[in-house]
Amino acid sequence: MAPQLDSYFKQVDGLSDNFIDRLRKAVAIPSISADDERRPDVVKMGKFLASELRALGAHVEERPLGKQPHKEHLELPPVIVARYGNDKNKRTILVYGHYDVQPANKEDGWATEPFELSIDDKGRMFGRGSTDDKGPVLGWINCIEAHLKAGVDFPVNLLMCFEGMEEYGSEGLDDFITAEAKGFFKDADAVCISDNYWLGTEKPCLTYGLRGCNYYSIAISGPGQDLHSGVFGGSAQEPMTDIVRVMGSLVDTDGNIQIPGLKDLVAPVTEEEKSLYGDISYTMDNLYESLGSKTSIFEDKERTLMARWRFPSLSLHGIEGAFSAAGAKTVIPAKVVGKFSIRTVPNMQIDEVNELVYKHVKAEFAKLKSKNTLDVSLQHAGMWWVASPKHWNFSAAGKAVEKVWGVKPDLTREGGSIPVTLTFEQATGKNVLLLPMGSSTDAAHSINEKLDKRNYIEGIKLQGAYLHYVAEEPLS
Amino acid sequence: MAPQLDSYFKQVDGLSDNFIDRLRKAVAIPSISADDERRPDVVKMGKFLASELRALGAHVEERPLGKQPHKEHLELPPVIVARYGNDKNKRTILVYGHYDVQPANKEDGWATEPFELSIDDKGRMFGRGSTDDKGPVLGWINCIEAHLKAGVDFPVNLLMCFEGMEEYGSEGLDDFITAEAKGFFKDADAVCISDNYWLGTEKPCLTYGLRGCNYYSIAISGPGQDLHSGVFGGSAQEPMTDIVRVMGSLVDTDGNIQIPGLKDLVAPVTEEEKSLYGDISYTMDNLYESLGSKTSIFEDKERTLMARWRFPSLSLHGIEGAFSAAGAKTVIPAKVVGKFSIRTVPNMQIDEVNELVYKHVKAEFAKLKSKNTLDVSLQHAGMWWVASPKHWNFSAAGKAVEKVWGVKPDLTREGGSIPVTLTFEQATGKNVLLLPMGSSTDAAHSINEKLDKRNYIEGIKLQGAYLHYVAEEPLS
Repeated sequence: MAPQLDSYFKQVDGLSDNFIDRLRKAVAIPSISADDERRPDVVKMGKFLASELRALGAHVEERPLGKQPHKEHLELPPVIVARYGNDKNKRTILVYGHYDVQPANKEDGWATEPFELSIDDKGRMFGRGSTDDKGPVLGWINCIEAHLKAGVDFPVNLLMCFEGMEEYGSEGLDDFITAEAKGFFKDADAVCISDNYWLGTEKPCLTYGLRGCNYYSIAISGPGQDLHSGVFGGSAQEPMTDIVRVMGSLVDTDGNIQIPGLKDLVAPVTEEEKSLYGDISYTMDNLYESLGSKTSIFEDKERTLMARWRFPSLSLHGIEGAFSAAGAKTVIPAKVVGKFSIRTVPNMQIDEVNELVYKHVKAEFAKLKSKNTLDVSLQHAGMWWVASPKHWNFSAAGKAVEKVWGVKPDLTREGGSIPVTLTFEQATGKNVLLLPMGSSTDAAHSINEKLDKRNYIEGIKLQGAYLHYVAEEPLS
Repeated sequence: MAPQLDSYFKQVDGLSDNFIDRLRKAVAIPSISADDERRPDVVKMGKFLASELRALGAHVEERPLGKQPHKEHLELPPVIVARYGNDKNKRTILVYGHYDVQPANKEDGWATEPFELSIDDKGRMFGRGSTDDKGPVLGWINCIEAHLKAGVDFPVNLLMCFEGMEEYGSEGLDDFITAEAKGFFKDADAVCISDNYWLGTEKPCLTYGLRGCNYYSIAISGPGQDLHSGVFGGSAQEPMTDIVRVMGSLVDTDGNIQIPGLKDLVAPVTEEEKSLYGDISYTMDNLYESLGSKTSIFEDKERTLMARWRFPSLSLHGIEGAFSAAGAKTVIPAKVVGKFSIRTVPNMQIDEVNELVYKHVKAEFAKLKSKNTLDVSLQHAGMWWVASPKHWNFSAAGKAVEKVWGVKPDLTREGGSIPVTLTFEQATGKNVLLLPMGSSTDAAHSINEKLDKRNYIEGIKLQGAYLHYVAEEPLS
């Protein structure tokens, strides 16, 4: 099967210095989408991708998204869409990635300059955006180049969608994808997103599920303005007193959500599903290392992974309007807003969850018999996503992992959300696969972000192999 | 009695424009102690007082306090100490006030320029520091001037202590007072502090009690760093979950402190004491107006005043380390610090309260069976203060109020603390009286701070009359 892969792999190895050099150039462009002053660099990064793709013969369009909402003086960076190959006899794969990055300053604690790719003797390539998400995005470009130079026919038509606002809420992208599902993306047979990570450091995974997130505010207000606790303590009902009691009624120390009826919305665990967790390459030590402590809820891997992937969780994030600085302030806050979110899983529907949350919060507040005023509301919500890992899109990726890494991949879900995943699924109606390149220790969003040279180079091979196996998969 | 008061009063009325002009000059100096860049203005204000006092023949010393703690590049403003009169046959009264002010910017919502005295047609004199505390401080200077110009013998020896850091924690003052109790202040027979307000707007009061304050931090920590709630929600024990439950165990909506044993420390209410509250000039509408709402704990004046003055209260101020901004952030905070304080009353001792607080907080945390780590500690404490209102210092002030305002003053306590009060009492061993000049609507610390012209001018008469009655009081 896929006999031409060996010469493709050889070419990738031969070009590896070029590919690292391409990553170096990309990391050197500080394309921080959250920083207004860096907007020209974000645009520059998009143009860099467009130019690299054009040089390889791809058809590229830089598609404007208009003004940035709430920042009307700023133009959103363009979505770079591209097509490589237009053969009716080949499958068409749509790949997504983003070319903007999180903010980074040397002063935050970076060991090296964040916008200079620095490779240490263990092959760790440090630099902002190396793993999130410039490495994976360049992977597809490198994949095209290696095919060209190896003289190997490209096995599919490749559609590309690279955005520049992912780290700032993907502003404008949903509408764009929805519109282009019947336009630029209309030929897509399946979607592949490379914007996540292995569960650990040694074993690749394919990701078929994400939790959703309902984010709530509980506002409690009483006095017309903040009060002095010396003067009014004891004679006024205090919103803070009420809010800690209401927030304390939501979840217990072991993560058990106390909202009546919520558990009934969760799809039951089947015996078959239970058996899947034992084989996942993950240990409690992996958890303790990433927590930086042993303050886990469970003592075993299976229940920990299930709690992360397939059960809901409720986290209290904080309180707006109360005293939050260091030191001491004798204030009675007049209005406080408690923030919490629920990670959702199949079959929890956003509206059903809202209804149970509102009912519980109002009932708990009513118990207090307070004269203060309560308002509970949903700030935002994103649905969970679960794909079928039996689809040919996943089988092809699984074979590619075995070919490149010599192991069957773990089939994983993630506890967080990647909203664009669901958008692609809903807009195109096609299967979506998450195919990670980097590993769990890459520190995306943190200081000292890195991508291992091995993950980059083997990842480029994996992307190419995936496309070859996609071409061979029977219709399903 | 005190037959010379009439000519003194007449002189005060005649000089009222001069006195308002003196206040205008003082308000024009933005002596903001919290603002490093305004430090020269604070010093300028101290020198203004010194120069006015010297012009009237007082002996004045500008006493340095050294460098400002934690801001070693800044010199603390001097304490202005002065003596007017040195007659062994007269009583000696020590008066205290402060010449620094809270920050103020027109942009905060002031209707007029905060550092320009603006008088409206109701005689309200708006300006930062007008009532807190430049008006009362200048009152003593005006009092000397009016005696001189009226040719009335000054009835006592007056010692003055005017500090420039009151709005920033009175840094350095405690040690200074303690040292000078046997030095510059050694002749003091009683102390009078004018740095508080009437309970309402129509009836003067004398204040003989203040609550103390024990301020606590509850720190709960778990993970080594903040976590993403998508990734770790459901698998890690969250410090926020624990802290809202512990904070929720401290006090209920109606202000009942839930810490076992705490109520037993409070001095019982006597029948005699109960009868005092009915006559106090205060209504529930006064409370609702100052709250800006009707969210009171009690529906009657007596229990409201007792809750403010003579019972302890517990207020939750906020949580450090959690998400506190507007909007949404899906963080699991790694370490959170809950802040609360207990207002203390006779006979609660600081250490006894600490012991009960620590025991209760630890017990409530233990109930959670959490793997997180708890640390509860006292941030700072100040004792309550109650003076004897039967002392000649209070009788003299009571007679002065009757003479100037035609009513017997309310004898009040306050819910907040004025730490320097207790310092003076402990350092000198003498009776301390709080003699307010301004009224409850003066908005000290807020925008549009004002002092009513009537309160200023009659307040100057009151200060003088108080000194005359002090001279006539028998030894007690």
